[in-house]
This record gives sequence, structure tokens and C-alpha cells, in this order.
Amino acid sequence: MGFRIGVVGATGATGQITLALLRERNFPVDELRLFASRRSAGRRLPWAGGEVEIEALEDGRFDGLDLVLNATSTSLAREWVPRMVEAGAIVSDKSSAYRLDPSVPLVVREINGDAARSHKGIVASPNCTTAVAVMALAPLHHAAGVKGVLSSSYQSVSGVGRDAVAELLETTTKALDQQDALWGLAKLDLPDPVAFPHPLAFNVFPQCESFEEGSDESTEEQKMQSETRKILGAADLMLQATAVRVPVVVGHSVSLSVSLEREMSPAEAREVIAEFAGVRVLDDPSKKIYPTPQQAAGIDDILVGRIRRNPILENGLTLFACGDNLRKGASLNAIQTAELVLGIS
Amino acid sequence: MGFRIGVVGATGATGQITLALLRERNFPVDELRLFASRRSAGRRLPWAGGEVEIEALEDGRFDGLDLVLNATSTSLAREWVPRMVEAGAIVSDKSSAYRLDPSVPLVVREINGDAARSHKGIVASPNCTTAVAVMALAPLHHAAGVKGVLSSSYQSVSGVGRDAVAELLETTTKALDQQDALWGLAKLDLPDPVAFPHPLAFNVFPQCESFEEGSDESTEEQKMQSETRKILGAADLMLQATAVRVPVVVGHSVSLSVSLEREMSPAEAREVIAEFAGVRVLDDPSKKIYPTPQQAAGIDDILVGRIRRNPILENGLTLFACGDNLRKGASLNAIQTAELVLGIS
Repeated sequence: MGFRIGVVGATGATGQITLALLRERNFPVDELRLFASRRSAGRRLPWAGGEVEIEALEDGRFDGLDLVLNATSTSLAREWVPRMVEAGAIVSDKSSAYRLDPSVPLVVREINGDAARSHKGIVASPNCTTAVAVMALAPLHHAAGVKGVLSSSYQSVSGVGRDAVAELLETTTKALDQQDALWGLAKLDLPDPVAFPHPLAFNVFPQCESFEEGSDESTEEQKMQSETRKILGAADLMLQATAVRVPVVVGHSVSLSVSLEREMSPAEAREVIAEFAGVRVLDDPSKKIYPTPQQAAGIDDILVGRIRRNPILENGLTLFACGDNLRKGASLNAIQTAELVLGIS
Repeated sequence: MGFRIGVVGATGATGQITLALLRERNFPVDELRLFASRRSAGRRLPWAGGEVEIEALEDGRFDGLDLVLNATSTSLAREWVPRMVEAGAIVSDKSSAYRLDPSVPLVVREINGDAARSHKGIVASPNCTTAVAVMALAPLHHAAGVKGVLSSSYQSVSGVGRDAVAELLETTTKALDQQDALWGLAKLDLPDPVAFPHPLAFNVFPQCESFEEGSDESTEEQKMQSETRKILGAADLMLQATAVRVPVVVGHSVSLSVSLEREMSPAEAREVIAEFAGVRVLDDPSKKIYPTPQQAAGIDDILVGRIRRNPILENGLTLFACGDNLRKGASLNAIQTAELVLGIS
């Protein structure tokens, strides 16, 4: 009574977490097929006591699959997802290729799970930072209507890929030997960054993804607004994000200022957030209790804390949320969405 | 024609930068005396081709000093600064002990240098994050009146002290050997933090300084509002800060959302900021040009970029600023203030 599942991008960071989550959740898998770039084809990955050989993305290979969990780049998704659908599979896509397509539901199970039913072969999952932020915003939105959001993020590097993590760790090792430079007394001598626009070891920078020529917002920042609107079904919601990369491996954090339709006390906000599935309130700062990315890494729940009145915004609240960008920010959400579509959950 | 100068807290992080800046600026020093804890007394530090022996803080030792640059803790400042003034010295104090005292000017040379003249023996310098933020806000305030500010910070550890930097670097070294844990697949095994509320290696947390029992704002966050009001002479200005520690050694960053009395275009904002002394505009994101703490470390100017309209706030602007927390955030500002008081600059 299981399903024939394909995992595309199986060797990447999100692909690996996808395999771990399929196990953790006892996902009913009758047959597992793994796909990756031609470079990885032929390698074998452990599964269910045996091994599965990785296949290259090639036409004709998707026949017979019920579901594809797709973790490719956006450009590869544009090319291959339609062929997977044509071959008869439902595709739960983690890329940004179809998120804003009006014919594709953009789904977060706890928020707009019903939307998944209207799929025409593809269901999309949000951007990793959007997923964390929208899980904190949704309970407030349901209770009191979110009108406006200002977000400053603290984004980890694992979503960029394994190479990016390796680059952070290698340059951190090199920087540790240059204490004068870390103190600002000399120039840091690090190799030119490849995965990042600037060296990230002991640094932060206000760029995630890229800026189109002349644009004052990064593509990451644009996604935050458009995807949050679509998921919350709030076309007029104004959201401005400042997306900042920080030297963290797993776990995205967002500092959120929220304007609501009606006044809501911090106590009520804690209550509605705590009652919402998939979110946990950690909020007792004088006891050092608040979310951190290290606490959020490796767990499914989004953590929310530092909840207080915002004195600048109308009916304003301020909060700080952390989530695992590989789980709820990517693989977990795509699997939860697939479970909905397949009627598993 | 020079001055007899005392540097208190000479062995600490800010004390060391103070000595470097006195050299860099050719500060007219006739005699230099160094003070630190009893533990450091008797050690010698290089100065002007010779050495100066460190003295312990003791009554009677301040006689004959024209100026004391004080970089002690707040509690030591409460105890010792009045005795230094009594002994005849002007004290440029970096601690938070006297910042909000109505009889003590809280001075940033480029913003309210005139206020220094009214001192009665003590001139105070702002909190390190406040100093960075207020330098970005002042030109906007002078041109268009700042009404409200929301700040999310990315604060480095050097201001906490040398021990805190050592703790970050040691735990980072230990964490680099635990890749599974960094990926969220195991629990990080690190010694209990001493300088911080949580381990900071590859982590961030929304706590700088401390929370009083039951308070939803840290002392650091409270300082941001009260000190910014005093420096800008804007008693009604509303500022809410979320102060977040990040694994950076030197350089504080702030993501600022600003509401003004009148509309101001990003182009005008760039112009008024660029014209302001001590601030530099770096703002061409598609060319990877924006402030980072690593660029700000070791220089005197505050860097400002990512300037754009804020669609949520009335007459809103959004910006990102970085500054060296040991320089403009501490030692540099204290020396600049002393220069004003002594009529040097």
C-alpha cells in the first residue's frame, strides 16, 4: 500500500535530509528511485537495509513514479518538472520555479493545506526563510490579520549547498589563524569567495541570492513578500525584508516587526502561536529562553520568542523566530505537502 | 604643549585600541599613565619608544592628570570616575554609568559636539551599537526629523571583552570538528558558555547584555532608545531595538527601518549621509557593494548602504549600517570627545 517515490537532487543537502525524513516519518515507500547530476550517477546510497543506485536525469526515467520530491535548482526544475508530470508523477517541488504560478498551489500544511487539493501535478514549497517567517506570522494573521511586516533575517548557509558549507568551514579554519586580522588590525587573508559574494567567516553581509542590475532588493527579499502573500492569501500584505547571511550552518532566524488589523497583546500572541501546529513558543528572556538557530537545527517545529509590543507600528508586535531551513524550510515541508496530496497524513 | 593622560582599563580590548588611536592621531601626550586591575599592575606596555608600567586603581594616583580615558566596567566607573574628577582630571568615560545623567553630556562629535562644552568634569560616549546606529540616523534627523526607528542588530563579541573573543574562537575550533552536529544531525558538544548566555560558535542569539527579571527588553536594547534620544536631542523619538549577538569578532551591524517627519527619497538620503562627517555610503548592491562588519573593522567611518524606501512606515526608509565597535563604538568616540573638550581638534 505504499508509493513509488523519486527523490531528485538526492546527493545535495536537502536531498539528504529528504531521505532522513522519509525514514523518520515511516513514509510508505514501495520503491525508491534516486536522481542527481550525471556526475553522481552510478553512486549508491543506503536505503531500507540495501542500496539504491543514483540515476541521471533523463527522459523516460520517470515512468511509473507516483511522486517526485524535487530538490533541484530552479532552472533544472523548469526543464524537468513538466516531464515528470507528463510521465504521470505528482511533483512536490522545492525550487522557486513554480511557486508564483497561479495554477500551482504554494503550500504550508499547517497554514493552507487545503490549497494542495487543487494541484494539477505540481505542488510548490516556499523559500526557506519565507517558510520560517510565515509559520510565525500565520497564527497572528488568522487571529488578527497581518497588514505589514518588516523582516531582518539571519540566514544560515546550508540552503546554498554543500559547497557553501565547506567554504564557510574552510575559511573559518583559515581565519582562526589570523587573530590580528579578526581584531581589525590587519587585512584578513582568505581565498576569493566562490559560493558567496564576500568571505563569510566571522562576517555577515546583507545579500542572499542576487540583485538584478539596478534593483535595491535581492531576489530572496522579493520572494519573501510574494510568497508570504500567496500562502496567507493576503494579496495586500506589505512585507519588506532585509536578507542577511550569517556564519551559521543550519537554522534561519528572522527578527519580525508586524502590524495587525486589531490590537493584540503579547500574551494573546503567545497563546495563538502556541496553539498553532508546527510552532513552539520559547519566551522567557531573563531565563535565557528564546529561539536560537542551534536549538532549531534538527527539529521540525519553528521556534518563536522575544514577543513584545512594537511601539512604532499600528497594532504592532515584535518577535524573533528560528527554524531549520533544511527541514521546514525545504525537505520537511515538501514531504508534508506530498503527504497531503497523497492522502497519507 | 601636550597633556598628561591616563588610560584606565589599558589591558582590555578598548584600552588597547585607545593606545593605538592615540598614536594614530598624534594625540599631544606629554605624559601617559596606564591603569588596570590589580592583577595587571606592574606589567609594562610599550609607548613612544619606551615602556609604561601599569598601575592599579588607587586613591591618590590621579593627581596631575589633565584627562582620563576611562574604559572600565560601569560599576568600576561609578566608583572611580568621581575620584578622578575630584583629583582634577576631565574624564572621557566609555562606560554606561553617566550617559543618562542630565549633568553629563553624551557626545558624538559629528552630531552634538557642542554639548561637550557644558561638561562638569565628565563627558560620556554612547553604547557601541548606539554609536553605529546614531551616526547613520543623524544626517536623516537633521534633514527630515526622525520620528521612529526599528533596529535589528548583528553585534560582534569584542565589546564583551578579550575573554569573550577567546571563548568564541575556542568553541569555533571545537565545533569545526563536529560536522554532523553543525548539520543539525547530532547535538553540539561544547563547554558551557561563560562569556555568553548560549554557545556562539556558528550560532546567533537575541540577547546582548541582560534582561532584568520580567523585562521583555535587554539592557542593551533599552540603551539604544534612551541614548539615541539624548544624542539627537529628540525626547519623543520612538526606537525599538532587537539586539542579536553574531559570531563576528569586530564590527557591529544594524538593519534600520526609519520613519521621518517628511518624505525623503533614497537618493536624497544617500546625499545627506554622504555629506555627513564620519559616515560613508556604500550602496550598489548588484555590484556587491554594501557595508559588512569586516569592511568596517579597523576604520573610523561608519558605513551605510542598502538604502531604500520602507513601504510600511510613514515617510519610511530602510538601511543597513556597519561600524567598528571598538573605534567609533568606543575608543575613537571617547578620544574625539576628549579632543573637543581639550580644544585639540
